[in-house]
Amino acid sequence: METVKILGIAGSIRRASLNRAALRAAAELVPEGAELTTFEIGEIPPFNQDSEADPPAVVADLKAAIRDADAILFVSPEYNYSIPGVLKNAIDWASRPYGDSAWEGKPAAIMGVSGGAIGTARMQYDLRKVMVFLNMFPLNKPEVMIGNSGQRFDGEGNLTDGATREIMAKQLAALVEWTRKLKG
Amino acid sequence: METVKILGIAGSIRRASLNRAALRAAAELVPEGAELTTFEIGEIPPFNQDSEADPPAVVADLKAAIRDADAILFVSPEYNYSIPGVLKNAIDWASRPYGDSAWEGKPAAIMGVSGGAIGTARMQYDLRKVMVFLNMFPLNKPEVMIGNSGQRFDGEGNLTDGATREIMAKQLAALVEWTRKLKG
Amino acid sequence: METVKILGIAGSIRRASLNRAALRAAAELVPEGAELTTFEIGEIPPFNQDSEADPPAVVADLKAAIRDADAILFVSPEYNYSIPGVLKNAIDWASRPYGDSAWEGKPAAIMGVSGGAIGTARMQYDLRKVMVFLNMFPLNKPEVMIGNSGQRFDGEGNLTDGATREIMAKQLAALVEWTRKLKG
Amino acid sequence: METVKILGIAGSIRRASLNRAALRAAAELVPEGAELTTFEIGEIPPFNQDSEADPPAVVADLKAAIRDADAILFVSPEYNYSIPGVLKNAIDWASRPYGDSAWEGKPAAIMGVSGGAIGTARMQYDLRKVMVFLNMFPLNKPEVMIGNSGQRFDGEGNLTDGATREIMAKQLAALVEWTRKLKG
Repeated sequence: METVKILGIAGSIRRASLNRAALRAAAELVPEGAELTTFEIGEIPPFNQDSEADPPAVVADLKAAIRDADAILFVSPEYNYSIPGVLKNAIDWASRPYGDSAWEGKPAAIMGVSGGAIGTARMQYDLRKVMVFLNMFPLNKPEVMIGNSGQRFDGEGNLTDGATREIMAKQLAALVEWTRKLKG
Repeated sequence: METVKILGIAGSIRRASLNRAALRAAAELVPEGAELTTFEIGEIPPFNQDSEADPPAVVADLKAAIRDADAILFVSPEYNYSIPGVLKNAIDWASRPYGDSAWEGKPAAIMGVSGGAIGTARMQYDLRKVMVFLNMFPLNKPEVMIGNSGQRFDGEGNLTDGATREIMAKQLAALVEWTRKLKG
Repeated sequence: METVKILGIAGSIRRASLNRAALRAAAELVPEGAELTTFEIGEIPPFNQDSEADPPAVVADLKAAIRDADAILFVSPEYNYSIPGVLKNAIDWASRPYGDSAWEGKPAAIMGVSGGAIGTARMQYDLRKVMVFLNMFPLNKPEVMIGNSGQRFDGEGNLTDGATREIMAKQLAALVEWTRKLKG
Repeated sequence: METVKILGIAGSIRRASLNRAALRAAAELVPEGAELTTFEIGEIPPFNQDSEADPPAVVADLKAAIRDADAILFVSPEYNYSIPGVLKNAIDWASRPYGDSAWEGKPAAIMGVSGGAIGTARMQYDLRKVMVFLNMFPLNKPEVMIGNSGQRFDGEGNLTDGATREIMAKQLAALVEWTRKLKG
């Protein structure tokens, strides 16, 4: 079987973000037969439709990376009960111009880390709704909502909580299986 | 009675955006006893929590404009079935640092323009959910969802449709009344 | 000041429901100057618009109880990531016929109890969206999402967790204040 | 290839419901190689978890019909900006007891008819969220949101609008293809 290429995108650009840390952990947890690369969205400017026909180089790079991937992994905080603007802005850029979205048909999974108990649920359902329009195929289960993050990472941002690592590994394995199924 | 100061923010930064055009029309439709000023979000960089304690000048200006206003009017397209990243990013900046959100307690209204029939409904409910966290007070009715925009503006971006102007004027009047009620 | 009359409605009709138990606890936590009565929705039949002009007696009773109240308190589980059908059905009945909704203009608050960590968040935002149409005024804060219910009630369904009782009391006090503010 | 069996469920129990009428039209528009049967939910009582181990016969029948189907078609109005209580109640019954949900793994599609312009969008995204929990696989596209229903049906409830029939036929064909793909 061919290697399943997963592109991981973190929804926060803060250096010490625990979501970035979770994405690094995810790279260690990818099952055999798959690989995970990441794309940094911090340099993507505000989307302006006037520039969509001639986007910045970083946007062209993002679209190429998405197109090269078999599946997408979003690892994101929840900002103000929804998708971080910085992540949504990257999604918007890569969806344009009309008819040239890079997201078309991609299987996907979502993880999220938060300090409180809820674990980014509100962000995740908004992101799922976005994927209806993008014609992406988010995995149903397992959902990975990592609440109470203060108990799960050490001071260097290493994900030390075993149960969290386990559910992340399960989701990644399910994503690989789902991707293979959809490719037929 | 004191003048009610409304701050209008457009969710698209495209020059010929019909949402920007609708915001210009809204400025003409504000009732007596109120005034509408606008803030341009096009220069706001991607939110990075590492910089939130010392934000760019444009963010400080945005927060000052919000604080100076009695009520907020969002006029926004729907991008990929949700809030445009560029608008959400501005919202995120002005909500930070923790405990220093400029949005706290502000009454608000939402308008949206789209080419299709739905008229930005999906964006509007996501934005309402965001406002729960921000402790803002969005008007319930009338909702202003301007679909089929091609029939409602002329070639110069003037809002020529009488029924649309009427419901926008009604919403603005309701926003002024709602703001006065909440100020007590 | 006049007593604020709160009508409490539980979203589950199971006898030993922890949401019903939480509603009983809420009745003990109502602040001075307010009172809480409850309405049982278990006998309300499936909504059929063919009967809306001549509804069952229990629906007429529900509408009378809502109209007699100054504010509404929903205490509900989350079923399948949304509002329980049995609660939504009661809401639908009391909203009809067109122009005769009993919910019009009522302030409201939401509590929810669940066994897992999320604490009915998904139900609560769907219910808030419903309230936009109903022209109700849900309190923003504090939100009461009681997760991990197994740790918070004793074997007889008594809410024994002090922190939970405290946030419920805060929400009820905020609802009373919000109701008085909206009555002007 | 084996026939794809679609189970159609209308979300309104009103006799002259246009959603029921749309479901009848859908039965005529099913592609070759598929068949559509319907289940009437009007007699399903309010869900009570105390009875879930020994449900009413009509619920057992519903669960058997779902299990016998390869795919589900929901055709539903939007009540108060969300799923009709009567439909959600049927969904809740068929999802229980825990571990014995009839919905598990079923592909699905959604259609909705409304009098206004929006065409049940708010109901549809809530229903999609429900399907995440149910581990169902809703089709992304085409979405079928039939607004302005007064212009699309004749006085006998026949769906006469050609464009509407066409998009419904496209959705049904896509559902059959999606179901075959997921069955592998």
